[in-house]
Amino acid sequence: MDYTINPIGYISSSIKDRETAPKMEDENGAVRAVITINADVSEGLDGLKEGDWIELITWFHESKRDTLKVHPRGKKELPQRGVFSTRSPFRPNPVGLHRVQIVAIEGNRLEVEPLEAIDGTPVVDIKPFPKKFKGKLKDLNE
Amino acid sequence: MDYTINPIGYISSSIKDRETAPKMEDENGAVRAVITINADVSEGLDGLKEGDWIELITWFHESKRDTLKVHPRGKKELPQRGVFSTRSPFRPNPVGLHRVQIVAIEGNRLEVEPLEAIDGTPVVDIKPFPKKFKGKLKDLNE
Repeated sequence: MDYTINPIGYISSSIKDRETAPKMEDENGAVRAVITINADVSEGLDGLKEGDWIELITWFHESKRDTLKVHPRGKKELPQRGVFSTRSPFRPNPVGLHRVQIVAIEGNRLEVEPLEAIDGTPVVDIKPFPKKFKGKLKDLNE
Repeated sequence: MDYTINPIGYISSSIKDRETAPKMEDENGAVRAVITINADVSEGLDGLKEGDWIELITWFHESKRDTLKVHPRGKKELPQRGVFSTRSPFRPNPVGLHRVQIVAIEGNRLEVEPLEAIDGTPVVDIKPFPKKFKGKLKDLNE
């Protein structure tokens, strides 16, 4: 079994490093960002359009993978918990999961918001938001 | 950059093959299933408890990875679309995303439902459901 991820594209963002990146579960600091999809898989974007909400799976390329417990949201005063009960970027398989809206799409270039990801983050997958969430998502993000 | 997934565990399910597996976006046929987490990473489960909803990322181990367009939900009468605008298991990086509830947890063994995944499916990651969705999820799944 080959478990190798081949990034389908990369994120361009004004968030340049982990220190200035917002902590997960904290909406402040999420920005508009650009996803550039590799030409060899850009045909897979057919059917996505402006206004759509997508689920974006990324690879936390700067994360350590041997961490099993963390202080939630990096707060030392909170007791350590298993990484699978947190959304920490430090985890055995450092995949991120983000819900963003497509604000513009042109060829293989998607502008999305709000996205909390470091500039240069590899993109693993894009999925449409499940139908059952449609029409409810705006409320959920408020 | 090493993009290799190391499965953190595997799914045991009464769904034995792709032919009898339900199509995505179709709730019928999702079942109660068991996730067994590998002993070397089971410490990462600390903090998860019965009743919690989790986001489960899996590896569609039986999927082709060179498919860029599909008929949505396998329905030949629907025009083909790019895989990133569908939740087809055929995609360049065959990761699945499932929202399930923990109905029992004992050591490294999680019983969850409802889960549409084939027996033997490798598990890539487990994340808690984001706080902003809490309390709204039951409605979303009805």
